[in-house]
Amino acid sequence: MALTRKGQATRERILDAATELIARQGVAGTSTEDVRKAAGIGGSQLYHYFDSKQALIRAVITRQAEAPLVPGQPLMGALDSFDALQAWADAAVESQKPGRGRGDCTLASLAGELGPTDDETRQDLCNAFERWQSLLNDGLRAMRERGDLRPDADLDDLAMALLTALQGGTLLSQTLRTTQPMRASMNAALAYIHSFAP
Amino acid sequence: MALTRKGQATRERILDAATELIARQGVAGTSTEDVRKAAGIGGSQLYHYFDSKQALIRAVITRQAEAPLVPGQPLMGALDSFDALQAWADAAVESQKPGRGRGDCTLASLAGELGPTDDETRQDLCNAFERWQSLLNDGLRAMRERGDLRPDADLDDLAMALLTALQGGTLLSQTLRTTQPMRASMNAALAYIHSFAP
Repeated sequence: MALTRKGQATRERILDAATELIARQGVAGTSTEDVRKAAGIGGSQLYHYFDSKQALIRAVITRQAEAPLVPGQPLMGALDSFDALQAWADAAVESQKPGRGRGDCTLASLAGELGPTDDETRQDLCNAFERWQSLLNDGLRAMRERGDLRPDADLDDLAMALLTALQGGTLLSQTLRTTQPMRASMNAALAYIHSFAP
Repeated sequence: MALTRKGQATRERILDAATELIARQGVAGTSTEDVRKAAGIGGSQLYHYFDSKQALIRAVITRQAEAPLVPGQPLMGALDSFDALQAWADAAVESQKPGRGRGDCTLASLAGELGPTDDETRQDLCNAFERWQSLLNDGLRAMRERGDLRPDADLDDLAMALLTALQGGTLLSQTLRTTQPMRASMNAALAYIHSFAP
């Protein structure tokens, strides 16, 4: 379905409302009627854009996959140096400060809630994680080519270590409501990357 | 409420059924009626033990807090040496092999699903995570006292790095259905611990 510019703006507004509600209430606690009201659109209009709740959730995930790697932060430059990785880690810790709220619905919580049940949605989550992993991979490859990392550094392993640190840190920081888990997970992941310096 | 031995057995059977259903279907996808049927008990009997779905979920979490740190593995000894930590990490990777199923309902997926909504349940999850962190802490303290770790090693930081690695690795391994995320997160966490050897 090709959308007019106005149609695209409405679709974005619906996705913004859905993302915020899911962040606050979880997927199960969010109805399409909640989303419709929050987006301020008329009765049947939502179904013009998303023909089911599942379609709406999948669109939220797909959009999150395009989002910067640290929720609530402006898109960061290429993560292709130790300094850039440290700035990324610091932003991840900052994003977990109490009072910042959940801010965004994270893939970590979506994965926790949706993982077991719905296979199509799980596939969207896989694609999102793989996209993030490949962004991290690109930066690490540049570092290896520049000689910042040893030739034997396994880039898939290092990129996945950064991604699991972000997800594990997010999950525990949001549950415990302190930045300590994110700080610890990022310390560990960055120390691991540093251990592959020549 | 003091339970007879038979009553305790029934309560355990209900918790077993609830844990398995939640692992397969998520919290939102599991009704108390599903649990009652799976446990094979009569109509009003469930409410004799748990007066609401929330009370049931909280009991599942509290029991998970007592469980071994790696789901599906027999309780491991004290994690108080590099060898013991390596065996723990290997067991965590093993537990994510495809075909092992989710096996158990993990705190990671419960935290993802419940985090945003319910404050009492979040507090139970905090207690569970803190109990696990304190088990890890005990082992690391023994290592530091023995001289396996430097005196300046921050045990809270190291224990949390292990816990976030377990949770982040679980979440991504279950979503992507490969062991690679758990392997990468455990590699990073153990390398971090090793970096504090004298």
